[in-house]
Amino acid sequence: MKKITTIPTFEDIQRIHEAIRPYIHRTPVLSSQSLNAIAGCEVFFKCENFQKVGAFKMRGATSAVLALSAEERECGIATHSSGNHAQAVALSAKLQGIPAYIVMPENAPSVKRAAVEGYGATIFTSGNLITDREEMLEKVLKKTNASFIHPFDNYDVIAGQASAAKELHEEIPDLTTIIAPVGGGGLMAGTALYMNYANPNVTVLAGEPELADDAFRSFQSGKIEPVLRIDTIADGLRTTLSDKTFTIIKNHVEEIITVSEAEIVAAMRLIWERMKIVIEPSCSVPLAVVLQQKERFKGQKVGIIITGGNVDLGKLPF
Amino acid sequence: MKKITTIPTFEDIQRIHEAIRPYIHRTPVLSSQSLNAIAGCEVFFKCENFQKVGAFKMRGATSAVLALSAEERECGIATHSSGNHAQAVALSAKLQGIPAYIVMPENAPSVKRAAVEGYGATIFTSGNLITDREEMLEKVLKKTNASFIHPFDNYDVIAGQASAAKELHEEIPDLTTIIAPVGGGGLMAGTALYMNYANPNVTVLAGEPELADDAFRSFQSGKIEPVLRIDTIADGLRTTLSDKTFTIIKNHVEEIITVSEAEIVAAMRLIWERMKIVIEPSCSVPLAVVLQQKERFKGQKVGIIITGGNVDLGKLPF
Repeated sequence: MKKITTIPTFEDIQRIHEAIRPYIHRTPVLSSQSLNAIAGCEVFFKCENFQKVGAFKMRGATSAVLALSAEERECGIATHSSGNHAQAVALSAKLQGIPAYIVMPENAPSVKRAAVEGYGATIFTSGNLITDREEMLEKVLKKTNASFIHPFDNYDVIAGQASAAKELHEEIPDLTTIIAPVGGGGLMAGTALYMNYANPNVTVLAGEPELADDAFRSFQSGKIEPVLRIDTIADGLRTTLSDKTFTIIKNHVEEIITVSEAEIVAAMRLIWERMKIVIEPSCSVPLAVVLQQKERFKGQKVGIIITGGNVDLGKLPF
Repeated sequence: MKKITTIPTFEDIQRIHEAIRPYIHRTPVLSSQSLNAIAGCEVFFKCENFQKVGAFKMRGATSAVLALSAEERECGIATHSSGNHAQAVALSAKLQGIPAYIVMPENAPSVKRAAVEGYGATIFTSGNLITDREEMLEKVLKKTNASFIHPFDNYDVIAGQASAAKELHEEIPDLTTIIAPVGGGGLMAGTALYMNYANPNVTVLAGEPELADDAFRSFQSGKIEPVLRIDTIADGLRTTLSDKTFTIIKNHVEEIITVSEAEIVAAMRLIWERMKIVIEPSCSVPLAVVLQQKERFKGQKVGIIITGGNVDLGKLPF
């Protein structure tokens, strides 16, 4: 395959979906009558917590790996991450039989390190600052000639993440709204692009924690604003947008809606209790949006991407 | 339909499954490659935590309600329970448009009372002892002429619970072993009966907490032994067998295997972390059995019934 070098087209997304299909799960779309009664609308959850490595990140990482040339594959892939992207890159590399080099900060949870090692990747430990991680990655790239797989500022990654919305829409073709959480914006950009192509009548919304409202502020100011705080419980959403994701989000997302920490935890609890699934706090942001504005969504068919289920059971907010 | 008055036949179980089908979910069978790697065998989880009311009890209660005569339906149904059976009886009655009377002890969690009320049932509050509950139920039955739906000592209930194993076996026809947890024995008896009819070569095992090993002791002594302690974390399994369930279990279960509290919690955590599903402690007993005796199950295809997902998130053992 060839790398995507401009904003992915509908055909790009369809082609990438076919290409990554053998390496990912087609995750179920779940709903709950009792939860719908509470929300006042029909909510359809695309359960990427059941995806390989427990998160949608497997889609984008696989897409990026498949776009490498034969020469690039030989040198392998690299990234820095303490979270789901690290595992996704490691497993994608393993499935393709190529080496992976992962820079992880000292303070990464040991269970995540163990998972990455379990996929056969080589781990480089860096300091905890983002600059420490980037410096270490630079060294690794120089030494190994590996290809850097950015977690979201990469069109192949964005097109891969779009496949989650595609599968959800295939299963529930009469969606009226789709909501994804926004962190770095890879999933949100892919979701918005896909829906814009497949059915522009579907309202595309982004959910974001008030405590990490950089995308909300960027949307208003028209330029990328930095994340100012990193204390939201939705740890997957503490990232700032990139050029590629912001351009797409600016053009294809109708509105970014922020929710409080209390709203996030309440929505998370509701999903655990009613849906009986284990999800990360980040995933509950879209449902928190629905519960915050019930009148707006009344009677609608709302699709929500559940991003992942890798949560520390020893540190639950209940 | 007519009530089943002797041990359910294969035809009974097939007929009941057809009859209850419109009122229950066909729940998914899930598996996890990483969990299989840990267990050393293929484990298939029949996810009754996704069943209506969050537990397999909906199957048996629906079966029992459908067996009532027109006259009996008019007077409604009753039971005493502080748990999943209460909700299952209440919802079954609601779906059939008949009244339900539920005796619940004072110490029943308010969330469970609210759920039962939400299904439109009338609640009678009793003292907390089992004798208090039984006395109150006697009064309710006299006053209302309602039919008592026993949670397990009832052949229609047993035949209803058998439908979970039937669906699991339909999906994974080459199972080599099936394991269910045993409390009062309704699910275990139904599972064992069904497998005995459908494929007697499948090994049928029961899992039980060491701290509530009444079925294990009954199996050895040949007569029903009481539960001596009620402090296992597997709160769904604190019940003693009944005549109907013990007779079936004695004849169709190969072995009852007990597991420690630590083994139960470890298996529960593994299911939450790897499967990303919310399950009750009782459900993790069968996986604890597999992990305790890995050599025995090596390379096998093991079916496990996940009984329910109604757990108090404020009181998790992690």
